[in-house]
Amino acid sequence: MTTTNKTVPVHRDVKAELRQQAEEMRQTFAKRGTLVVNVLSSPGAGKTSLLEATARHWGDRRRMAVLVGDLATDRDAQRLAPHCPVEQLTTGGACHLEIPLVKQGLAKLGSNDFDFLFIENVGNLVCPASHDLAEHVRVVLLSVTEGDDKPGKYPKMFRTSQALVVSKTDLLPHVPFSLDAAIRDARQIQPDLTVMPVCSLSGEGLEQWCRYLDDQRKDMIAKSVTDEVRVAV
Amino acid sequence: MTTTNKTVPVHRDVKAELRQQAEEMRQTFAKRGTLVVNVLSSPGAGKTSLLEATARHWGDRRRMAVLVGDLATDRDAQRLAPHCPVEQLTTGGACHLEIPLVKQGLAKLGSNDFDFLFIENVGNLVCPASHDLAEHVRVVLLSVTEGDDKPGKYPKMFRTSQALVVSKTDLLPHVPFSLDAAIRDARQIQPDLTVMPVCSLSGEGLEQWCRYLDDQRKDMIAKSVTDEVRVAV
Repeated sequence: MTTTNKTVPVHRDVKAELRQQAEEMRQTFAKRGTLVVNVLSSPGAGKTSLLEATARHWGDRRRMAVLVGDLATDRDAQRLAPHCPVEQLTTGGACHLEIPLVKQGLAKLGSNDFDFLFIENVGNLVCPASHDLAEHVRVVLLSVTEGDDKPGKYPKMFRTSQALVVSKTDLLPHVPFSLDAAIRDARQIQPDLTVMPVCSLSGEGLEQWCRYLDDQRKDMIAKSVTDEVRVAV
Repeated sequence: MTTTNKTVPVHRDVKAELRQQAEEMRQTFAKRGTLVVNVLSSPGAGKTSLLEATARHWGDRRRMAVLVGDLATDRDAQRLAPHCPVEQLTTGGACHLEIPLVKQGLAKLGSNDFDFLFIENVGNLVCPASHDLAEHVRVVLLSVTEGDDKPGKYPKMFRTSQALVVSKTDLLPHVPFSLDAAIRDARQIQPDLTVMPVCSLSGEGLEQWCRYLDDQRKDMIAKSVTDEVRVAV
């Protein structure tokens, strides 16, 4: 095929539009008092189990909802449905979630009246790191069975997260995993990372994780009020 | 920005070129007697450990080399270096390997005189499924800690593989994982999948895995000879 060199006309900067939408949604959620948490990890690191355990821990004391992303099936939504409002986002093969699918899920959820909205991303330690889903907090899970060398090998995921949940800690006696080495490796990439070891099956560490979420929500609400006062002045 | 609708001129069909290159490389390797194995899985499912165990099992009886892909660091190459010729392919953030990086690795390996060339892909159960790396056999690892529900949730990876290694079987007593359920789920997507449970640390199942590789290599050589005779006739 022969062709001349020319500038390809681009209709819109789609990525900038999505970033803008995410920023607006983040502010709207903050004003409403809903902390949005983007939950990321490799496949099978325990995202759904952590959210099940969180819902069980809180019971009626917090209002939480989940949007759960997968390439195919609604298996995770079925697991979460007994515990809280949930909508499955099926990407049809795509390796991460983006804002338009999140918006569809929100419309299906109906109510907006939540203290916490968790977005459980597609299991993938690479691509989801590059997409802002309007979250206030980004949490990456690393299960002890994956090995303590993973942060350095998947740096963007850890660099863009505020918290690291080290999951499946009940398996520590059976696997070659040093908690210290994993934390050191992760903090070399992101020094401010909050690290929380959790076992969703036994409930160990869950109290600390739920307290972290409450604190993040309080901070967000305080900041949102300050921002509004600043705008009003 | 306003613009008129027009067809965007495309200089080359890059994907078709890569597929063509992969096909030619596959034939060249087959004539040389080198079985190329693309090894895929989630992060931390045990790809490097399986290749270490394979190299130890064979010792000098087979000539094997590894190209190992990662977003960052050369940690996996360092682990494999004591056992066999290895080159690290660093994608610089990209979520999968492609043919041009494989070619660079091959050039660095120097010798082409191997019975087996393993390409350890980036740890990612989604994106690498869409890229032909000139392999004769595609093997997906699923560790028992990831859960038996993964095949249906990541269907393309399992549909495009010829073999499934269920890894970390030493942890079966400690995790909620049904081998039967995982195999049933995977075979619903790919009925011809060869399934091999393996524990790389204890060596359980390694004999069967290495025999499978030998059989695949013999089949490839036999087929390659038949193809040449057919062309000659």
